[in-house]
Amino acid sequence: MHRLLIKNAKALVGSHAGGIDRLAGATMAHLPCIEDGWLLAEDGRIIDLGPMETWPGITDWNGLEVLDATDRYVLPGWCDPHTHSIFAAPREEEFVMKLKGATYQEIAALGGGILNSARKLRGMSEDDLYESAKARLEAMMHQGTVAVEIKSGYGLSLESELKMLRVAKRLKESLPLQVKTTLLAAHALPEEFKEDRAGYLDLVLNELLPAVSREGLADFIDVFCETNYFTVAEMEQVLEAGERKGMKGKVHVNQFTSIGGIAAAVKHGAMSVDHLEVMEESDITALAGSNTIPTLLPSCSFFLRIPYAPARALIDRGCAVALASDHNPGSSPTGNMNLVLSLACIQLRMLPEEAINAATMNAAAAMGLSAELGSITKGKRASFIITKPIPSLAYLPYAFGADHIDTVIIDGKPARAGEATA
Amino acid sequence: MHRLLIKNAKALVGSHAGGIDRLAGATMAHLPCIEDGWLLAEDGRIIDLGPMETWPGITDWNGLEVLDATDRYVLPGWCDPHTHSIFAAPREEEFVMKLKGATYQEIAALGGGILNSARKLRGMSEDDLYESAKARLEAMMHQGTVAVEIKSGYGLSLESELKMLRVAKRLKESLPLQVKTTLLAAHALPEEFKEDRAGYLDLVLNELLPAVSREGLADFIDVFCETNYFTVAEMEQVLEAGERKGMKGKVHVNQFTSIGGIAAAVKHGAMSVDHLEVMEESDITALAGSNTIPTLLPSCSFFLRIPYAPARALIDRGCAVALASDHNPGSSPTGNMNLVLSLACIQLRMLPEEAINAATMNAAAAMGLSAELGSITKGKRASFIITKPIPSLAYLPYAFGADHIDTVIIDGKPARAGEATA
Repeated sequence: MHRLLIKNAKALVGSHAGGIDRLAGATMAHLPCIEDGWLLAEDGRIIDLGPMETWPGITDWNGLEVLDATDRYVLPGWCDPHTHSIFAAPREEEFVMKLKGATYQEIAALGGGILNSARKLRGMSEDDLYESAKARLEAMMHQGTVAVEIKSGYGLSLESELKMLRVAKRLKESLPLQVKTTLLAAHALPEEFKEDRAGYLDLVLNELLPAVSREGLADFIDVFCETNYFTVAEMEQVLEAGERKGMKGKVHVNQFTSIGGIAAAVKHGAMSVDHLEVMEESDITALAGSNTIPTLLPSCSFFLRIPYAPARALIDRGCAVALASDHNPGSSPTGNMNLVLSLACIQLRMLPEEAINAATMNAAAAMGLSAELGSITKGKRASFIITKPIPSLAYLPYAFGADHIDTVIIDGKPARAGEATA
Repeated sequence: MHRLLIKNAKALVGSHAGGIDRLAGATMAHLPCIEDGWLLAEDGRIIDLGPMETWPGITDWNGLEVLDATDRYVLPGWCDPHTHSIFAAPREEEFVMKLKGATYQEIAALGGGILNSARKLRGMSEDDLYESAKARLEAMMHQGTVAVEIKSGYGLSLESELKMLRVAKRLKESLPLQVKTTLLAAHALPEEFKEDRAGYLDLVLNELLPAVSREGLADFIDVFCETNYFTVAEMEQVLEAGERKGMKGKVHVNQFTSIGGIAAAVKHGAMSVDHLEVMEESDITALAGSNTIPTLLPSCSFFLRIPYAPARALIDRGCAVALASDHNPGSSPTGNMNLVLSLACIQLRMLPEEAINAATMNAAAAMGLSAELGSITKGKRASFIITKPIPSLAYLPYAFGADHIDTVIIDGKPARAGEATA
């Protein structure tokens, strides 16, 4: 049995009571902390915790790893519930073309965008895809991410979508962090179906989806519901088909235009609606009071210079906002959740407590991991960030662009060793 | 004699010819690279370099450190020509107050802002100030900064301004990176001179400046020329007094309003004008064709959510734009020049080549270090960034929020050791 004791933590942050699966509205600003805390984990699970004055002592030191967190905060590791971390290659050349003034249309005409990623991915071996994605996920773990959702959607064919999801499955099995997988075949219309929308949807829903389901390759289903991508009616078709296979929806909506996708997604019981940069009052109303989580992606807004999602309005209307990196080569070439936290506070005007809850508790809920991760709670996985000595929690988002993490623990074991483990 | 050989570099980036001291306008997009390069340094200076096919071989391997940079770029280390890296404490509590809706006036009434930093600094010992600033500069070196300008300006009294500059001098003497120091006593009007502007300027110019000059504590002089801070006429007084002591001007102008400070600074031969978030046509005209360098601070715009400086217009009009972090606790709590590079491309729309030149060659010029740093050129200091294996130079600003640096060399010696030094 492997046991881990963390003692003298400046605070155990996010020590929410068991049974809470999300924080909505005003409760998002509530981030319970056990000051001067201890925590005991066995075989990767938190079995007990409390302030040091309640530390019962221990007689059996056998196999006990002890970690002194004096002056350091212990936080739940980041959950990143929206990424496209499997891709063939970065697309910095398109970034430079845009800087030189190329329009979206010109880049698309030269083979850019999602279809660029699709073409490159189709030509890449499963092993090479796996290795490159593994390196990305290792970098994300180093930056404190302990759970990640990964979407397909750069395959856009039966074979290549399956290839992506098989790579995701290998990542899930081989890396210590939790991986959730999402079928996003309806990400864009592939070249060969340009004139045959119905044909592509038929392929996705009647061939790909059953195959994915048979192999158990996807936890969720996604669709890019947007002007020039998929219509609300098409999204509903996809969500209904996914539902029949037991896959909840996590959908891309309201990135560029508001076309009614949110109300429809809520109606279908989607687990999350993601992006939300362009929101009408009716979209917010549809979300408020629902169980669907709005997942915001501020690094995408930052990189594309599009509006930031209205986080304050969503919180004020009682939503359980989550944060994610949207890691992808076209619109958010970063998987750094610490920077996402800074963006959430500096640009979305979220309070540090709200942003931390959004990147832990609510992010876990947005990927179906509420029972496993998202808070420092008895019974959950022992997956933590241990900070360097920092003056306050608000310092984390405030002092942006610095590395405030000393140690990352996943399931009770160091995924990144620091001074606290020395 | 200590010697360093770097071989097999994917490219020696910024291998500008000797004698070039800045890149202005269209030439900023020109970033010469020696592909598959080697470089030899002796006692901290570059003595020769070229493509591997010209490597003459070496017979005397005595004391030669060899660094294999296969697949890695070698860049001139970042120069950061505008920081306030000496301060008593971070100010994240003001950041949170602002998130909660406090106005600038309310924060000032509660003792916030520059005067907050001044009050805290006055109560701090020189040793404690030194230690905290040293840790900040070490983190900046780790992120690739090999030269930094540091301003006073949180003292705002004879004693405390001298204390800050003495700390800067100790940093200069004890750390491997190049440090340039600037007297910024005219940063704000201290509490005790609220009703006596002339009295404070008299103290600064007739007591503090002579003392600073006697002790050789400052290379440059600075003043915050801005509505509610110091007028153009007061700035001119300060610049003239500095000039008489041999200190060139580096001034804060046009952050919030355009009041004619740029034309006046250019007239006085200021080395740089910094900020420039709010620019009139007349300000750009005054700069174009002058020797004064516009130093842009995009991380300040990002953090304060004020407009970004018009980098494109400045470059298009022939200016030699430089970049800096503005590291300070109130408006730019980061010293990460890699993130500044990303901000310069993503938000200021600079090309990667322009941004790299702005953070090396032109940044060196903005702090009087053209002969020492800013390019990979024979005779200059051997101070470099060696990257991790990355696909292209554009990847550096594009893949923001990640750590692309493997090794940092300052004056021929590793300031941060990585795989390339293993």
